[in-house]
This record gives sequence, structure tokens and C-alpha cells, in this order.
Amino acid sequence: MNAPATTTHLLPEIRLRAVPQAFIGALQARFGAQCSLAQAVREQHGRDEGSFQAPPPSAVVFAESTQDVADAVQLASQYAVPVIPYGAGSSLEGHLLAVQGGISIDLNRMNRVLSVNAEDLSVTVQPGITRKQLNDVIKDTGLFFPIDPGADASIGGMSATRASGTNAVRYGTMRENVLALEVVTASGEVIRTGTRAKKSSAGYDLTRLMVGSEGTLGIMTEITVRLHPLPEAVSAAICSFPSIEAAVRTTIETIQFGVPIARVELIDRHGVRLVNAHSKLDLREEPMLLMEFHGSPSGVQEQAATVQDIASENGGQSFEWASTPEERSRLWAARHSAYFAAVQSRPGCRIISTDTCVPISRLADCLLDSVQEAEASGIPYFLVGHVGDGNFHFGYLLDPNIPEERITAEALNHKLVARALRLGGTCSGEHGVGLHKIGFLPDETGAGAVDMMRAIKRVLDPRNILNPGKIFVL
Amino acid sequence: MNAPATTTHLLPEIRLRAVPQAFIGALQARFGAQCSLAQAVREQHGRDEGSFQAPPPSAVVFAESTQDVADAVQLASQYAVPVIPYGAGSSLEGHLLAVQGGISIDLNRMNRVLSVNAEDLSVTVQPGITRKQLNDVIKDTGLFFPIDPGADASIGGMSATRASGTNAVRYGTMRENVLALEVVTASGEVIRTGTRAKKSSAGYDLTRLMVGSEGTLGIMTEITVRLHPLPEAVSAAICSFPSIEAAVRTTIETIQFGVPIARVELIDRHGVRLVNAHSKLDLREEPMLLMEFHGSPSGVQEQAATVQDIASENGGQSFEWASTPEERSRLWAARHSAYFAAVQSRPGCRIISTDTCVPISRLADCLLDSVQEAEASGIPYFLVGHVGDGNFHFGYLLDPNIPEERITAEALNHKLVARALRLGGTCSGEHGVGLHKIGFLPDETGAGAVDMMRAIKRVLDPRNILNPGKIFVL
Repeated sequence: MNAPATTTHLLPEIRLRAVPQAFIGALQARFGAQCSLAQAVREQHGRDEGSFQAPPPSAVVFAESTQDVADAVQLASQYAVPVIPYGAGSSLEGHLLAVQGGISIDLNRMNRVLSVNAEDLSVTVQPGITRKQLNDVIKDTGLFFPIDPGADASIGGMSATRASGTNAVRYGTMRENVLALEVVTASGEVIRTGTRAKKSSAGYDLTRLMVGSEGTLGIMTEITVRLHPLPEAVSAAICSFPSIEAAVRTTIETIQFGVPIARVELIDRHGVRLVNAHSKLDLREEPMLLMEFHGSPSGVQEQAATVQDIASENGGQSFEWASTPEERSRLWAARHSAYFAAVQSRPGCRIISTDTCVPISRLADCLLDSVQEAEASGIPYFLVGHVGDGNFHFGYLLDPNIPEERITAEALNHKLVARALRLGGTCSGEHGVGLHKIGFLPDETGAGAVDMMRAIKRVLDPRNILNPGKIFVL
Repeated sequence: MNAPATTTHLLPEIRLRAVPQAFIGALQARFGAQCSLAQAVREQHGRDEGSFQAPPPSAVVFAESTQDVADAVQLASQYAVPVIPYGAGSSLEGHLLAVQGGISIDLNRMNRVLSVNAEDLSVTVQPGITRKQLNDVIKDTGLFFPIDPGADASIGGMSATRASGTNAVRYGTMRENVLALEVVTASGEVIRTGTRAKKSSAGYDLTRLMVGSEGTLGIMTEITVRLHPLPEAVSAAICSFPSIEAAVRTTIETIQFGVPIARVELIDRHGVRLVNAHSKLDLREEPMLLMEFHGSPSGVQEQAATVQDIASENGGQSFEWASTPEERSRLWAARHSAYFAAVQSRPGCRIISTDTCVPISRLADCLLDSVQEAEASGIPYFLVGHVGDGNFHFGYLLDPNIPEERITAEALNHKLVARALRLGGTCSGEHGVGLHKIGFLPDETGAGAVDMMRAIKRVLDPRNILNPGKIFVL
């Protein structure tokens, strides 16, 4: 691992490429009313939930089929114009920004469930469907799709960023849960990767090469994901702790003990305060673990008893149980709203969210020093974490009118990433590299691995039209 | 999916490339006694457990360090000579055959455990260590490495073929269990992929691109794999069934019910007979499921009770339990020896092993017709399967002096693969493509995906020196 670069990661590189009028004309001829040049539509598609800004794309194509995507990409390839796939718009890392110009391909109309294979625990969907929509469609099958980033993201966007969320500690991330893909390549060709078989040794793992490639290697047009049986029994609990350290120690010991806990989320006192205000709750404003156990009734009891013992040895208050589905939903909705609760708490603010992930044994080492630094900075912040995976997020609430805050927050993030890398971790547990972590990637993987990624990008997208300027700048 | 090609897959394409004397001289100068030109050594490294043959490599380098591997590859790159990494020699698909000439790099001396991170459930090893050696080293940590192909394969070879085995139904395959790699690239550069963090969204998933690439994209020199806590309670049972169909139905229902069974292996009556003879057992010579349950004592009981109910509804005989660790080991050793038991049962025979894997709901459809075809062929065969994953192997015992047997067996395999692909499955669940399935790969993935694999191969290995002629012929 190299020492972190000294780049400040403050602003993305904007390098607008030509978008010929002939290309726009060809798009309009092909797509008619499915192609919008309206300023408001373009601006909506040129931003995400992150803190960066760039000029909007030149046009937005509302794709309704794989053929639409293929045709749009073929035209873009012909004119060497960038194309940026757009799902729910909930990225945090600038993935949707047209930093090299180009067009946005909106996939929201491609939101159908193509086939439910309940008996094989899988489902094939179009990329525009969101995780909540998917779970709604399959709610009568006895199965569910567990991956849950905070936002109601699209399955396409989640696949493209290798997303995870609160259930990943038990059910894995998009890496483990995407079985097969249909992908439009940079030339507009349609290929398939993977099958519905649970495992395979047939050739290069193109599925997992595409998952997490952030739209830079292809545009996913069909996605087969694994489903999981709804657990027979579910039980959720919250437990407050005298310190973040006590909560983190409880988490580490729970994982090391091998408890198959389904969710174990840390929320610091700032986070609890935001969530209380936003979701009208009265949770104790102390560091808190929010947990869920899945299994048979007796299995859930066993797991909970083990974790209660561990928590109480670490000074945790007695568990408070959310026993009804309604109470559970309310708690988890509150957890998922933490980001938006924060946005609303400081009107006009932009949030920088950190995303480091470390081996579980190093979680305390990585977290505790970073908390001290955040407290000392004076910037409003909150801390939430999928701590069972070693992944956590500081959210810094920045006033755009105080540029020093961004500089301070970026410096804090820089220190945090350097610490995580020293401890054998990664700069991104689940949000992706996007624009914001381009400078961190070579620090993490070394230049050789980034060179290999670039080589793959160049050969699969020789005109550099697929979401260029994300992950690395060619 | 395309219709299966009409190629017969009968023999590999041998296309020997020049191995300049100057190259051999340079190797000898660099490696001295670590480089062998002896006929017996070369022949041993030019074959595997599969049914194909090719001329041996021109030399064998016994690598002792990453630097050794890098230097050997650099020399090979300079002279455009193929290099084939060699682990335990247990491949079934011709991976080790020098079909384009070149040299073998033996990695058996690189068999150290570099670091055990018990608290993070991971270990970093050199590629030459075998799965049994690894489990022996970590036996006092309370953890184990579950992936278990039949042979005592090397971790490097298992990673390269994306291997799995009997525990995959619960613990995943090498795809899910490799966290990070050190890899020597085609130019002899050393890169790292992944970190010790459990999850990451930092750039392209080079780790999983390398896993399953069969030595064609790089040579792994360090491998970090996940470990799993030894279950508190383990319980194994065998159950005989009146028909293969009854055993398969029991498996399907067990999986669909969501039982977290740790192992569920099908052995047909031929397989049981071979195993009985080889391992001096007296198992009932009927289709059999060999199962194992992991968990807490009560969890194991719950699982076993559920599966017993399902089995008995399908006509299964009452479970026979292997309650002591010794009994369990004996049973699983017998299962793992099935392949070698078969080899010994027909002296001089070569085995063609099929490797299809289908979605679990299609397992009966795929298997039962294929059993009828195998019975009708008159060729001695046996059937074993990791049926919980939808993966199974017919082993055809071929007399090399009766060429018609190979033709018949290949035709049966061809029919089986076509059936599996029609049912949404794969030609290879765990053995890899190697030489034997080159013709099947485009049938499975379509030409577009294979073209993408070829493009990646060309850019990462422009001189085509890394195990050329495997997966596809460039």
C-alpha cells in the first residue's frame, strides 16, 4: 500500500467533450418524445445526493427497452459522446454528474419484474425497479431481497455501485447477490453474463466485473438477483451504550463469536438526535446498537441471549425489544432516514459521507480516533455504521457558504481513509469511487491494479463513452 | 442461448510454440537447481487427473517466492513462451497440459501460511498450500476453511478454477471466499487486488476476475481467504432412497424450505458400490443422500428434524447417524475418495467427469433423463452430486483401448450440457472450462460474452503466454 496522495479531492475535474448537434438530432429522430432537452429535466439528471456539482447533460433519453438502451449507446458511440445511466438518483459519490458532458439514459421506465423464480430463490428484473418496489412485487412468495442501502435505490444502481446496507452482515452485498446480467456494451451490443445456476466455473466472472463498475463498462438492462426465504422469526432490539467504544466492542465480539446476526447498526448520539427529531422517536441520545435477529423462534432466542450477554459485559443498557412488525418497520425506517434527517437538520447543507470499511478486529482502532477528530473539528456531523461488516459513515453537514468547512471535512476524510488503509481496509465499503474517491483508489490498491482496471476500461470502451471520469480519469 | 455447437470436443488442439534455447539457458542461469529439464519431472507436470494428453512442458521451475514467479514470467514474456502454473495436479479439465508448449511453474514450495487473522476470520497463504494443510495449520483457532473439492487441491488451483465442493451449499465457493490476492501479471509485474475488509466498492472487482481465470490472466502468489467458525454442533447422517428421483426431490424441498444444511451429497448405487469397495464400508447400495448439519445443538436438531420429515415423505429410509467425529470423517473421506475409487475399479481407465449445474428447481428434470441415457450406454459410470447447489457429476470410466467408449461418453456429456443450458444452467459448476469445455462456453454465454473475455485476455496478456489455449483458443 502506498502513502495517501496529497491531492485534496476537493473538486471533480470537469472536461466537457463535444456533443455534436447531429447527434442530438439523431437522438430526437430515434426517440421522439422519449428524448428531452428541457433544462429542468437535464438538471435533475445531472446531480445526485452527493456534494459535487457539474453542468447538466445535454439530453435525457427515457429508455423503455433494452433495444432503446442499445440504440442510444450505438448513436453515442458513433459520435463519441458520453452516456450516463440514471436510476433513482440516490448516488452519494457524483456518479451521475456529466463531468465530461454527454447524455443521461434514464432507466426508470424499465422497472418490470421479468420473472420470479421462487422455487430457485431468484428473480430477474429490469434495472429501474427499486428495492422497495421489488420487495412489494414478491411479498407473497415467502421470499425477500435483503440488500438495503439507505435510499430506495434502483437495482441497477445498486448493482453498478456494488451496494450493500444493513442486512449485508448476514446476506452479503450485491457482489454475492447478483447471479446474472444482460448488459449493453460500449458498442451497443447486448451480451449476457452468468446463468440462473447458483454457482459456475465457466469462464471469466463477467458478472462480478460489471457489478461495481459504476456504469463505466456497460449498462445493465436485466439483472437476476438472489432472493432469501423470509425468516420464520424476526426480532429487533436496541441497546444503548455508555460509549461508542463499548458498542463497537460488543459488535466485534458478536461477529467473532459467530452469531449469525442479521443486522447490527451503530448510531452515535448525534445520529440518534437527528433520527429522533425527524422520525418523532424518543430514543435515548447515547451511542446505540440497532440489531435484528433472523431464524427459527428458538434460534432467534439463542442469538439474542448470546448478544445480550456480550452487550451487558460491555456496559450496554438492557435491550429494548421491538416485537411487532410495525414497531420494527418504524425503527428501521428511522435508521434508513438518518441521511435525510441530517440534510433537513441544517437547511441548505450538503453532506460529505465517508465510507471506509476495515477488518472487524480493527474497527475500534479506526473509529475511535476518527470520532475524536470529528468532535474537535466543530463541524456538525453524525455517525452511522454497518459495524458488523466493519463499515461506517461519518456524515459531515456542510454549509456551502462556508468553504472552510468543506476543506476541513475533506481533510478529516483524508485522515480517516489513510487510517483505514493502514489497518487493511478500503476507502469504500459500499458507495463506490465515483468522483470523490478517485484520488484514494491508487492509495488503496496500488498503481498496478489501477493500471489493470484502466486497461480493461480502454479495451471494453475504446471511445471512453461509458460514464467517463468516474473511478479514474483516463 | 445458442444451440450447442456440433464440435465433438474429442481432442484438444495441440499447437506447440517455439521454446528458444536461449530462453532455457536464461532460466537455468536464473534458477539453477530450481529449474528441471528431466523427462520424468516434465511429464509429471504435463498431465492432470483428466482424460486428455499432450506433450510435456520443456522445463519445470520450482518457485520459492513471488520474486521467483515474477522473474520466470518476465523471462517467458521476453521470449513469448507459455507458462502454466502447477499446484496439486488434481485438475480434471486439462488445465495443466502444455497444449501450446512452454514451461510449468511448480508452486508447491510456496506453501506457507503468511498470516492468520483469526479475529477477522481470514488467513493469507501462499498458493501451494493444500486445503488439508491449511486446515491443519489453523486447527487450534476454532476456525476452518470449508471449501473441499474431492482432491486435496492447492488453494492456488482452487482459486484459479473457482472450485467448490460439498460445503458450498452453506459456505459458498471460492468466488465468495477469496478476499484478496497478490498476482503476477503477464509482464511479470506484481499487483494486489482487494483488501482484508469484508466488503468493498472500490473499483473493478479484479479479485473475482482472477478467481476462475484458470491461470490465463495472472499467477496468484498470495491468497487471502475467509475462514468460518467451527460449528458448535455437527451432525452427519445418511439416508437411502428407493430412487434417485426421491433423493433429488428431498434435496429440492430441503433447499426451498430454507434449511441451512451444510452438506447434502447424492451418491447413486454405482457410486455407493465403488465407495464400499474402496473404503471398506457396507453402505446400502441404493441412491443415498449424505448430509451434514452445522449449528448450535438445538439448531442442528431442528434442521435434522425438518429434513427427516421431508425425506420420509419422499420414501427415504430412516436416517443413520454418524455421531462421532471419527465416523463422520470416515464417511466424508469415503465420499471424497469416490473419484479415486472409480479409477481403481477399472484398472487403466481414464475418467470423463461431467460438471453441469442447474437451478435447483430443474435438478430432477436435468438429472433423471441423463441417468436413463447413462444406463442405456453400457459404459461403467457413477453419479455423485453436490445436489443442494444443483451441481452433479457423472463419471464415465473409459477403457483407452476402446475408442468408441470415449465417443459415446462425449456424446452423452454433450446431450447433458445441452439439457442443462436449456434449463438455465451452466456447463461447469466447479471444475472449470480448461480444454474440455471450450466448445460449450459460447453455447452457454453467447459469442458476445466470450468475445468480451477474449478482449480482456488480449489486453492483459498481449503475448498470450499465460496458460494459453485454456477457456478459449485465441
